[in-house]
Amino acid sequence: MIALYSSPGACSLASHIALREAGAEFELHRVDFAAAQQRTPEYLAMNPKGRVPLLVTEKGPLTETPAILAWIAQSFPQAGLAPTDPWAFAQMQSFNAYLCATLHVNHAHGRRAARWADQESSHADMVAKVPQTVGESFRHIEEEVFKGPFVMGDGHSVADAYLYTVSRWMETDKLDIARFPRVHEHRTRMQARPAVQAALEAEGLKPL
Amino acid sequence: MIALYSSPGACSLASHIALREAGAEFELHRVDFAAAQQRTPEYLAMNPKGRVPLLVTEKGPLTETPAILAWIAQSFPQAGLAPTDPWAFAQMQSFNAYLCATLHVNHAHGRRAARWADQESSHADMVAKVPQTVGESFRHIEEEVFKGPFVMGDGHSVADAYLYTVSRWMETDKLDIARFPRVHEHRTRMQARPAVQAALEAEGLKPL
Repeated sequence: MIALYSSPGACSLASHIALREAGAEFELHRVDFAAAQQRTPEYLAMNPKGRVPLLVTEKGPLTETPAILAWIAQSFPQAGLAPTDPWAFAQMQSFNAYLCATLHVNHAHGRRAARWADQESSHADMVAKVPQTVGESFRHIEEEVFKGPFVMGDGHSVADAYLYTVSRWMETDKLDIARFPRVHEHRTRMQARPAVQAALEAEGLKPL
Repeated sequence: MIALYSSPGACSLASHIALREAGAEFELHRVDFAAAQQRTPEYLAMNPKGRVPLLVTEKGPLTETPAILAWIAQSFPQAGLAPTDPWAFAQMQSFNAYLCATLHVNHAHGRRAARWADQESSHADMVAKVPQTVGESFRHIEEEVFKGPFVMGDGHSVADAYLYTVSRWMETDKLDIARFPRVHEHRTRMQARPAVQAALEAEGLKPL
């Protein structure tokens, strides 16, 4: 049995949606960030990074969203969640790496500034810049990457679950969503998918 | 023909080494960061991210180190640069995602603090914390991830080129390398590989 450890609305939502799109059987375990559950000895024994997502399978633990998404797609090939052609697969991995290493990092400066600086004045400075940096990431996606109707073009993939997940952060990151009509339309359309609806309900989230 | 755009000693060195390990024919293009060549209209037309690495093939451009490394491994399967089993491949991708989204991001706060904050006092604060954050990333690798003799265990993979590349930053990030004997030994051993030696020479770098 697969177990996914996630926190509602965090980046782990992407892996959660992908498991449902894949038709996988899995257990969902909520990690309560408000109670700092990700820092408990029990959780750190499973995932020393102290983060979500954590996927546990019969083969062991797996972390990092792009790796989990690719594994789900490759393990449930009948669901067609990733291209099999190496070049197209690499483009999808490139998109997912950008979300993981640039967009999510920009977003994290609004909530986890203490990871990278100690002074309160620095934290405030970093928080203030989030709309600019996350906005630039979404501008890049909107204007230079997104193919439509899905991220990679005609084919739905795990990249769509990931974009949907991070696009839910736009309002809290104080972005004017009207600047990003294609990402916005994608978000709305993703919410019509049964897998997305089921994942939202299981995490206690609402469509946006 | 494949073209790789890299800057000496930057994370693009990992893709460079991987191409040589794969036995690929490629052109190496130096991107001069000191001259801000990555922000020129010519370069931005190829890669709007304004970063390295950029790989250009007959099919188009590809960015983001984990995606490039996986594509090289899959495109030159005879070189055996990545596991073919999906679970083992996912573990390698997880390692590469960690380098890309956590270790490299921590490192970048020492040189690119202006990406995430505007005040000079914030930048100084972020720079000061780099030994701690990058040190924690290498501690995690040293104690909790690295299998030995290679990153993934007995099998050499593109993850080794990536770890080698970022481990070259340890001294400039003011880490006490004696704290990380396994990573240090790996770095030394990697430098005995002809592909690594050729990449260093082509980038005008020396072994460490």
